[in-house]
Parts: sequence; structure tokens; C-alpha cells
Amino acid sequence: MARSDGRAPGALRPVVLEAGFARHAEGSCMARFGDTHVLCAATIEERVPPWLKGRGRGWVTAEYGMLPRSTHTRTDREAARGRQSGRTQEIQRLIGRGLRAVTDLEALGERQIRIDCDVIQADGGTRAAAITGGFVALHAALAGRGPGGAPLLRDHVAAVSCGVVGGVALADLDYGEDSAADADANIVMTGAGALVEVQAAAEGAVFSRAAFDRLLDLAGACVAELVGLQKAALGLDR
Amino acid sequence: MARSDGRAPGALRPVVLEAGFARHAEGSCMARFGDTHVLCAATIEERVPPWLKGRGRGWVTAEYGMLPRSTHTRTDREAARGRQSGRTQEIQRLIGRGLRAVTDLEALGERQIRIDCDVIQADGGTRAAAITGGFVALHAALAGRGPGGAPLLRDHVAAVSCGVVGGVALADLDYGEDSAADADANIVMTGAGALVEVQAAAEGAVFSRAAFDRLLDLAGACVAELVGLQKAALGLDR
Amino acid sequence: MARSDGRAPGALRPVVLEAGFARHAEGSCMARFGDTHVLCAATIEERVPPWLKGRGRGWVTAEYGMLPRSTHTRTDREAARGRQSGRTQEIQRLIGRGLRAVTDLEALGERQIRIDCDVIQADGGTRAAAITGGFVALHAALAGRGPGGAPLLRDHVAAVSCGVVGGVALADLDYGEDSAADADANIVMTGAGALVEVQAAAEGAVFSRAAFDRLLDLAGACVAELVGLQKAALGLDR
Amino acid sequence: MARSDGRAPGALRPVVLEAGFARHAEGSCMARFGDTHVLCAATIEERVPPWLKGRGRGWVTAEYGMLPRSTHTRTDREAARGRQSGRTQEIQRLIGRGLRAVTDLEALGERQIRIDCDVIQADGGTRAAAITGGFVALHAALAGRGPGGAPLLRDHVAAVSCGVVGGVALADLDYGEDSAADADANIVMTGAGALVEVQAAAEGAVFSRAAFDRLLDLAGACVAELVGLQKAALGLDR
Amino acid sequence: MARSDGRAPGALRPVVLEAGFARHAEGSCMARFGDTHVLCAATIEERVPPWLKGRGRGWVTAEYGMLPRSTHTRTDREAARGRQSGRTQEIQRLIGRGLRAVTDLEALGERQIRIDCDVIQADGGTRAAAITGGFVALHAALAGRGPGGAPLLRDHVAAVSCGVVGGVALADLDYGEDSAADADANIVMTGAGALVEVQAAAEGAVFSRAAFDRLLDLAGACVAELVGLQKAALGLDR
Amino acid sequence: MARSDGRAPGALRPVVLEAGFARHAEGSCMARFGDTHVLCAATIEERVPPWLKGRGRGWVTAEYGMLPRSTHTRTDREAARGRQSGRTQEIQRLIGRGLRAVTDLEALGERQIRIDCDVIQADGGTRAAAITGGFVALHAALAGRGPGGAPLLRDHVAAVSCGVVGGVALADLDYGEDSAADADANIVMTGAGALVEVQAAAEGAVFSRAAFDRLLDLAGACVAELVGLQKAALGLDR
Repeated sequence: MARSDGRAPGALRPVVLEAGFARHAEGSCMARFGDTHVLCAATIEERVPPWLKGRGRGWVTAEYGMLPRSTHTRTDREAARGRQSGRTQEIQRLIGRGLRAVTDLEALGERQIRIDCDVIQADGGTRAAAITGGFVALHAALAGRGPGGAPLLRDHVAAVSCGVVGGVALADLDYGEDSAADADANIVMTGAGALVEVQAAAEGAVFSRAAFDRLLDLAGACVAELVGLQKAALGLDR
Repeated sequence: MARSDGRAPGALRPVVLEAGFARHAEGSCMARFGDTHVLCAATIEERVPPWLKGRGRGWVTAEYGMLPRSTHTRTDREAARGRQSGRTQEIQRLIGRGLRAVTDLEALGERQIRIDCDVIQADGGTRAAAITGGFVALHAALAGRGPGGAPLLRDHVAAVSCGVVGGVALADLDYGEDSAADADANIVMTGAGALVEVQAAAEGAVFSRAAFDRLLDLAGACVAELVGLQKAALGLDR
Repeated sequence: MARSDGRAPGALRPVVLEAGFARHAEGSCMARFGDTHVLCAATIEERVPPWLKGRGRGWVTAEYGMLPRSTHTRTDREAARGRQSGRTQEIQRLIGRGLRAVTDLEALGERQIRIDCDVIQADGGTRAAAITGGFVALHAALAGRGPGGAPLLRDHVAAVSCGVVGGVALADLDYGEDSAADADANIVMTGAGALVEVQAAAEGAVFSRAAFDRLLDLAGACVAELVGLQKAALGLDR
Repeated sequence: MARSDGRAPGALRPVVLEAGFARHAEGSCMARFGDTHVLCAATIEERVPPWLKGRGRGWVTAEYGMLPRSTHTRTDREAARGRQSGRTQEIQRLIGRGLRAVTDLEALGERQIRIDCDVIQADGGTRAAAITGGFVALHAALAGRGPGGAPLLRDHVAAVSCGVVGGVALADLDYGEDSAADADANIVMTGAGALVEVQAAAEGAVFSRAAFDRLLDLAGACVAELVGLQKAALGLDR
Repeated sequence: MARSDGRAPGALRPVVLEAGFARHAEGSCMARFGDTHVLCAATIEERVPPWLKGRGRGWVTAEYGMLPRSTHTRTDREAARGRQSGRTQEIQRLIGRGLRAVTDLEALGERQIRIDCDVIQADGGTRAAAITGGFVALHAALAGRGPGGAPLLRDHVAAVSCGVVGGVALADLDYGEDSAADADANIVMTGAGALVEVQAAAEGAVFSRAAFDRLLDLAGACVAELVGLQKAALGLDR
Repeated sequence: MARSDGRAPGALRPVVLEAGFARHAEGSCMARFGDTHVLCAATIEERVPPWLKGRGRGWVTAEYGMLPRSTHTRTDREAARGRQSGRTQEIQRLIGRGLRAVTDLEALGERQIRIDCDVIQADGGTRAAAITGGFVALHAALAGRGPGGAPLLRDHVAAVSCGVVGGVALADLDYGEDSAADADANIVMTGAGALVEVQAAAEGAVFSRAAFDRLLDLAGACVAELVGLQKAALGLDR
């Protein structure tokens, strides 16, 4: 099965990570995975959530939103409905867990970093773009803020969506592919190749262990490539 | 590392599935995984959600709740706070997807089955118990309702939580083990052994592909055992 | 008019009060009035509501909920609707007032006892069962906590619903009787036979003072019996 | 114990029922019980609530509110808090039940009458004033609307609050008396002297059956007087 | 075009400002502009909003509401809908800004004055009546409370609505005129004739600068007259 | 007083209107007024709000939001707070009224156009940018959709903010100027120079009629320039 843009099954769409996009944020990144554009902005707050007070540790959390007309047909504005959807909450919890997994919360001290991920345009894979771009925003915000200049992040973290479409395992699904997928997965991994989070779901058909293994393989290669792009965007040695 | 109740790493807690527990429901099951007790009740509604009207297909959805004092320390009542938490929404979406994966929604016709999963007592693994018991409630509710008596469910579905605790892969974590886990996973599978849903997350430490593979192995064995218990509870030939 | 289960007009259904039902609560009771089953759980909090701070007194409050499928037809989950109904609020205020009426709030000190009453199965009279079982949970939670071992509860409190059905005064209405009642009343009394709360309402027809007096008579006898059952459940001398 | 305004224990405060107060409503009444002033306004809607559609019957419902500064110290505006309190809901349910008890809902047909009761100034007994004035508003709104000119109301309904203060049974408590009461009751009765609703609660001390009987006696006399005032306000023969 | 009540284009309706209307408030005024009646009540709170704490300054804020049946057809109760409308919020922000513009917030110290403006009956121009009456309530509440007896208000503030109806500029529109207006404006001015707030909107047709200038002229004359009435209501020298 | 960027008092910041920015919308425009960037997207819905059904007319409405980190310090996400602020509602009502003033709602027929205005970056004047860019989005969405190809828009509409800063009237305030303004105004006008909406408020000091007249003069010139830019962005003859 040929992909509509001619990509190989394991290939990412053209990915552009533009650090410093948001003028006012402590760190930011516009993450573009093809036609999916997610603006990630980091805010440093000199306080922690109430339940964490006095423990000497920091916190990283994320919020996620979509512009109403980022989607093919308009999506209701959550602020107008007065409630974030279950999907939104699931996604922002995923992003937060992923970024915390590589952050040294003890060294961060009693500060909270809040990462806002807003989808300006959607074409599949927004949560993977949010995690990948959110890491860049977080890294930029924390640069030079560790005690004695020590790094506050232990490793990179990035994510990719994969899925089984027409029996074939594909990486970085666009919206059309995602809609046609029998199963899809969001896989979050570190620069060192460890797993941080795996969320796989049967959409149209249950899937075999073998198919799932193939998705994990594809993800590993994609995340390695994304980590390279993060380093370039941040001006780090690769 | 010995488990507090002496179980083998891959062993389930004592599991009891009591079908027909709720007097008024069309189908029900009290699912007990050790000290975790979840009451699952199925309601058949002769209508579908608005977005599905007129398409000739049915729907299965789930709601999840915890009694405030099902937990060690009291959990605020969500009805009093006026909002279901992100965790609750995530869990009920997971249960719904899992049960839909084995339901023939076309044959069901324009009906919605709603599965209420209420945690009476919690000791880890409530979402796995909810899916496993929810299937029994769903099966009981749908018995004999297919067109021409044809079955409306294509297969069984059951779930188990697994995790890495102190470097060891364990199945069916209790609350104490779950709190100490470096990584945990909820794995939903069919009677035929296919994957329906995998949700794995690093809690304290990222995890290797090899550790993850081990969790998937444990889950496969446990789900096979749970499917056997479902059949017994429903009075089906094994 | 014969009652469907052959009871005498003034007779209670079989009542079972099972103390200690909830593993994690400081005190608990599963109260079964026939097919009405209410799980009552007490939580001790070492703080009082904001408006009571610094006054050296404690508080007892109650929350009430119904499992969605505790009822003949499913009742929407209040957490999902984002709002407790007027009926729910009325009931939990009633339970709280009833339990506070026998509690020595000064001796309790700056602590709040929260009684969660959750209807597992409903067949009429849930609020009476909640008060009667809630007292057992409260008593169990407070045992031995008074200053110098002094009791924190001044008396027992229990409740029963009564009503006029087909012109006859009946005690402890089940759901079918309640639906057919012209008038019904919930009457809360102490072990010493004093009144704590009376709520009577014309449902289908207004009622005479004489009929109302008869309901109060029936309630007095039932509450005396319920207090005896509370003592037995708590292992107290009768 | 002398009452601050010199009233006899069973005497009402000066009561003024001013029909037609609200220019735009189909029926209205400003009910003044001493310094308690409640504006009651009836609206006729040519439709019934969804759950009553197609049954050929009507409905009467009530809403209740207090102006924020109707009270000695300011009460938060419920519209600003985004939620009606339990007390408000309890009161509006009570008013609605009381008015429905004397309305011929079959003859009313598929129409809903909504009675808004807004407290302009509060000095105790607002719910009794609301029921008593609400009846006048309802009567005025329904005049001449029955089929063939037949009356839609079967009888009058009025209410009074009573309580035990310092061991003495008193009728129509003002705010100061209400705050000092050991027990208080709201009693709703018809013109014929039948009971519609009784709500009695121990505030500071439980109460005896004898004391409760005395409150019911006082209420009977007061309601008879209030019904006379309703007739005068409506220009009916007494 | 003749006005229905024969007023000249620039004339106010009969305006009555009745100070001291609300028994419990620190200051109050029933403001009647023809058939529009707004009850304004001031509450002094010995604290400021959180964002103003510790700055040594006070605050004046307003809340606005309409009784459901103040209007020709019933308006839903905002407390029942659980949300204040955009219109309500816009109006209460307008009232608050208008009153703050003449208050010496530094001299007021860390106190908040809350002005509740509740529409008892509506016939156009409720926000102008609320500002004009709200000033009287505020003035009465603050009398003698300035440091060393110094005045806390720098000037009067009052408001009027004006509009273009059938091509003619009219002052103080009633409901019928307002509904027919091509453009309308609410203009808030001080006793010295300075502008505080101008809100003008095309309703049916855009409007010329010349027409707008004419509205401002009318407003100036009306506000001067309203300020005279405020002084009379407060017993101040004119 | 020199402006920080050297602009003349009546000069706009560099304004760029980029039509077609949003890939999925029926019409869109990124409106940049200096560092203020607002993305405006039009959605055509083939239905009208319930209150307008069956009247043969259409509707134009707007929604407004700010990305949390569009501002210097982070603004809470309204979807997370579950409520749009009064400011947000005021702004979206203003945008909607402004755009409706130039739309032929009869010719539009029973369709609703929804204009989403999302602030990507804020530096003062966001509502003026939203109206100016919203018109471009609306025009693009409606092109060729009138009956018989007739235009659905009667004129252009655009807006600018003006204010008095340090005694000088300035056009198109940036955030720093806005914060220092004694008075500010948002003025919405048509291509023909008629007024659509004027909202002026004293911030630090009340303002004279003469100062206000000067603001209106400045606005007229700016809006004329903005209309020219709209025409260029839409490829219309000027």
C-alpha cells in the first residue's frame, strides 16, 4: 500500500522544530510534523501545586488545547462548553508524564514548569508533536537554571504515533491514515531508547503481538531521528 | 523479591466473578480481584447517542466511579466536586473501547449498552477488574438478543495490570505493589490472545523493551485464566 | 389491604445491620432493609469546615449517592451530570442533621466526621436506612475517642419511612408501596423516643391530622426496634 | 417569655398580601410577614417539562431566590457562584409540592405554571411567605382559565413556620426567634385544614411528641387566618 | 415622531431615587426611571480581593441581576442555569468601573464595597438606573467613613441611555423605544460633566458621527439633572 | 511624548493581514498589528441558533480566546477554569455585533457564520485586530455564496483602539501604552466612515468631550487605512 505522500512505511513526515517561536514564554517551540502544527510554550512558576508544598521538589505539567478551526470541521471551543473533554485530559496527562520522566524534579526545587501545547493546525499525531516540541520548550526554559549550572533534564524525550493500516505498520500517521487505522499507538521514548509510555488501542480490529512488536520497532527509529532534530533546534552537539 | 501474599510473580490474586449480583440490571457482575471489588452493571437502552442516530449501528459505553471510602484515605465524591477527574474519564474510555472491540455493533442495531463499573473497595487493579467483570455483565445482558439468536459478542475480553517492581515483572499488582512500581501496564486482550489495548507508563523509572516484553508475556497467561473464570461465571462450556 | 410480602402494617422488613463492612473506613455499616442496601462509611478528618475553625467544636456531615443501576431503571450518574440533584442534597442534609442531633460536638473537638451513604440497591426507604446505618458507622468510628473515654454520642438515632397507602398507615414502605402512597413521611427519632426530624408530604392526596398521628405512632415502635438492632450490631448491651 | 414585638405565642406578625404587584406577570403577590417581604410572580407556559409531554396533564413548579442583601449580612449571589444551594433547592421543591397539592393538573392541560418567589427582605419565615403569596399569584394567573370556566384550584394552601423557643411553642418566628429555636417546623395546610407538608427539625435539642403536637395546633389556627387574608387579597367571598 | 408618553426628545422619564430602601444594607437606593425599578444595595467588606491584598488600596465592585419576571416575558434565572450571561457580566463590569472612577480607592483603604443592583421591574435603561442608584447607595454607605472625615468620593457619577429612533435622537429610552432603536448608547458622566464611559452600538443601522454627537449632548443634560436628584435623595446641598 | 517605536500619534503599527492562513477554514486571516497576532477563521454552518429557526435569516457570531502564553505572564486557560471570563464574553459579543452590522442576514438565509478569533501573541489591541481580521475571514468565506452571486456584505468593517496617554491622544496602542492610558476606546467603523460601535472607558482619569472627539478623529483615519489593507488582502480593487 503506497502512502498518499509517497513516504516509506517507517518514515516521518517533514518535521520542523522552531525553538523560540513565542515571544513571551520562557521557552517555546513550534513543532510541525507535516501539516500538524503545535505551539508549545513553557512557563516557570516559582511555586508548586498545593499537594507538593514543602517537599523540596518541583513539578512539570502540561495543558493541551486545539484551536476550534485547527480541524477539518470545526471543533467546539472547550472554554465555551465549560469543560475539557476526556480526550483533552488524557492527552495533557500523557504529555506531563512523558516530560516528567526525564526531569530531575529534586534538582528543580519548588518550582512548577507548565507546558502549554496548542494545536494551531491538525493533521494527525498532535500528541506526539506536543511531546516532541514540548521537550524543546522545556529544555529552553530550564537552560542554565540547575543548581551550579547542572542540567535539570536527564535525557531527551520524544514521541511518534504508529499504526496498522491495511495490514501494514506505518509510522507518523497523518489524519487520513489515522482514520483508516485498525490499531494505533503513541510511543514515547528517551534519547537512550528506553520506553516512557506506550498507548496502543484497537480501533477497527484487534492486533497481534507481532504487529505490535513491529510498531515498537518503527517508533524506536523515529524517536532517534526526532531527538536529533531536537538537538539541532536547541543548538546542542549531536 | 517475595510478594506480601506469597504469590508467584505471574500469579493472579484469588479472583471471583459473581454474575447476577445486581437485582435490577439487565446483566451484572461483582468482580473481586483479591481485596479489589468492582460492581459492574449493564443497562440496555433502546436508543443510541445523537451522533450515531440513523446509522443502524449500536454502541457500548462505560462509566466508572469509586465510592468515596473504597480507598485507604477518603477520595472526594466526584458528584460533589461537580466534575469527573481526568483519571476517571481515562478509565471509562478505556473500558468502553475494550468492550466495543469484541461487540458486533452492526448486529446490535440501534441500541446502546451502558456498563456502570463502581469500585466498592479498592486495592489496585480496579480498571482491569472493571473490564473483566464488565464483560460478564455485558455478556449476560446480551444473551439471546442477537438477530436470530446469533451471538452479539465475537470473543471474550479481559484485562490485567502488570508492572515492574524492584526490577521484577509482576502480574496483578495490589495497591502496595502498584505504589512501589517503576513502571506499570494495563493490558487488555481477547480470548483468542489478540491485543486490544496496551497502556504502559514509567512511574519511577523508564523501562527497557525487554522488561516491557516480559509484562506482555505475563499478561497473556493471566488473561487466558480470567477468560476461563468468565466462562465459568456465565455457565458457558470452557 | 394485604402487603405484598404479607407484613403487618406496622412491621419492618427484615433488617440486617452489618458493622465493619468497609475495610478501609474508620467505621462502617451495610444497612439492609429488605432489598434496600445502603453502605455507610465514616471518615474522621482532623479539621473542620472553614466556617467552624477556631471554635473548639466538631462537625458531622453526610454525603449520599446512588449507584446508577441501584434502581429499577438506570439513574444518571451525578458525577457525569456535574451536579447533585435537589433530592440528593435534601437527603444528605437530612442525614447530617439527624446524626448531629445526638453527637456531643463540643466534646468531639475540632474534627469532622463525614458519613458516606451509598445506595448499592434501592427498594424504597433509602434515607431511613442511611440514617440508621450511618449511626452504626458513626458509633464505630467514635468508639473510645471521647476525652477520657467519655462517650461522644448522647443517644441512638434511627429512622423509618411511613405512609398512607390505600387509606391505611404502613411502616417501612418498599418501592411499590411508596409509589402508590397518598402521603409519606420520614421520621427520625432517638433511642429515648424523642423526635429529631419529621418530613411528611402529600403525594397524591392531602392528609388529615389523625392519619399523620397514626404515622408517628408507627414510627415510634419501628425506631425502638431499629435501635435494638443497632445495639446488637455494635455489640452493646441492650 | 415575652416576644420582642409583644405578640402572643400563637399570633402571626402583621401580614399584608398585595396582589398584582408585578406589572408583567400573569399573576403576582408581594407577601409581607412583618419585615419578611417575598415577591411571588406566576408565569404561564404553554408547554410542560419533557418528562410530562403527551400525557395531557399540566405542572406547577417554583423557583426561589434571595436578593444578596435581603439578609443581615450579605449572602453570595447564587448566579455568581454558579450553583443553587441545597437550601434553595429544598425550598423550591417544597413550594412546588405545596402548590401542586391543590391544583387540578388534569384540568390544567399541557401547561406549566412557574412561580418565582424572590426574597426582597428577610426576617424569618421566607418559605412560609413564599407558599402563602405564591398561592395568590397562582390563583390570579389561573382565574378564568379552567375548561368551561371551572376552577383549576381545589382549595387554598398556605403555610406558617412554628418553633419551640425557650421551651415555648411560638408561631411565625422572626429571624431572632428562629436563631434561638430548639426546634422549628414549616407546616403547609389547605383551607379545609388538611395537611400538605410538614417539615420539622431539631436545631438545638430534640423535641417531644407533645411539643410537636402543640406546633401543629398553632399552625392550624394561623393557616386559617392566612387563608382569610388570601381571599381578601384576591377579592373572593370569605 | 411623538414619544408614547409625550416626553420631549431630551427629557428623562419621571425619576425617583429612594435612599435607604433596604433595611439591612450599609447604604441603599431604589432607583425608579419610569417603570424601570432597580434596587441598589451597598455592602462594606473589611477585606479586598486576593489580587489587591497588601497594597493599601480599596475596591468597588458591582453585581447585577434581574428577577425572572421583571421582564415582559420570563427570563431564565441565572442561578438555575448555573452561569451569568455575557450581558450580565458586561453590565456589572460597567457599573463597577463607573463607580470606581469617582472613588478615592487609596483613602478607602483595604476595604471592598460591593454594590448589588437587582432589577425588580424592567422597562429599558436598567444599567443607567443601576449606576445612578448605585452611586446613591455607595455614597450613603461611605458617609463619614473617610480618614478624618474626608470624603471618599471625588464627584458624583450618573448615567443615561440614549438612542436614535426613527432618525431622532432620544434620551432615556423605554423598552419600546429601545427595541425600535437603530443605535443606542449608555453614557456615564460625572457631576463636573466629564465622561467616564461611553458604550454605543449600531443595532439596526450604522450611525453617523453627527448623530453620535447629538446623543452625547442629550446625555450631558440628563446626567446634570440626575446628579441634582442624587443630591436631593442624599440630603446634600445642591 | 515620543512613542517607544517612534510612531506619530495617529499612526498604526505595521499591519499585515494574511488571508487564507488556516488550511481547513472556509475563510481565514492572520491579522498582525505589530506584535499582536490574531488568527481569525470562519466556519459556515448550515443551521441557525434555535431562537432564529424558521425565520429565513442567518446569523454571524464570534468566539474569542487567548493562548495561555500569548501574554507577558501566563493567563489561565479558560477551558481549564471551566468558564469564559467576563472580558472574553464582552469581546466576542463586540466582534459579533461589528460583523453583523455589515452583513445582509436576510440574503444569507438560514446559515450561521462563526468567526473564531484566537490570539497567538498579544501586545495590545487584540479586539481591534480580531474585528479587522475577522472581516477578512468572513469576506473570504462568503465570496460567491450570495443568491445569484450578489454580495452578502454591504460594506467593510474595521476597528482600532485609541487612548489618551500622558494627555496625548494616540492611535493603535501597544501593551505598554495601553497600561499607561488614562482613557481608552475601541472604535469600530465601516468603509463608508459610519460608526458601528464605540466603547470608551476612563481607566485612570475621567476624560473631556474634547479629548474624546480627538480619539474619534484618529480612529476615522486609521479605519480608512485598515479598509485599504483589507481590500489588498482580499485581492479587491481599492
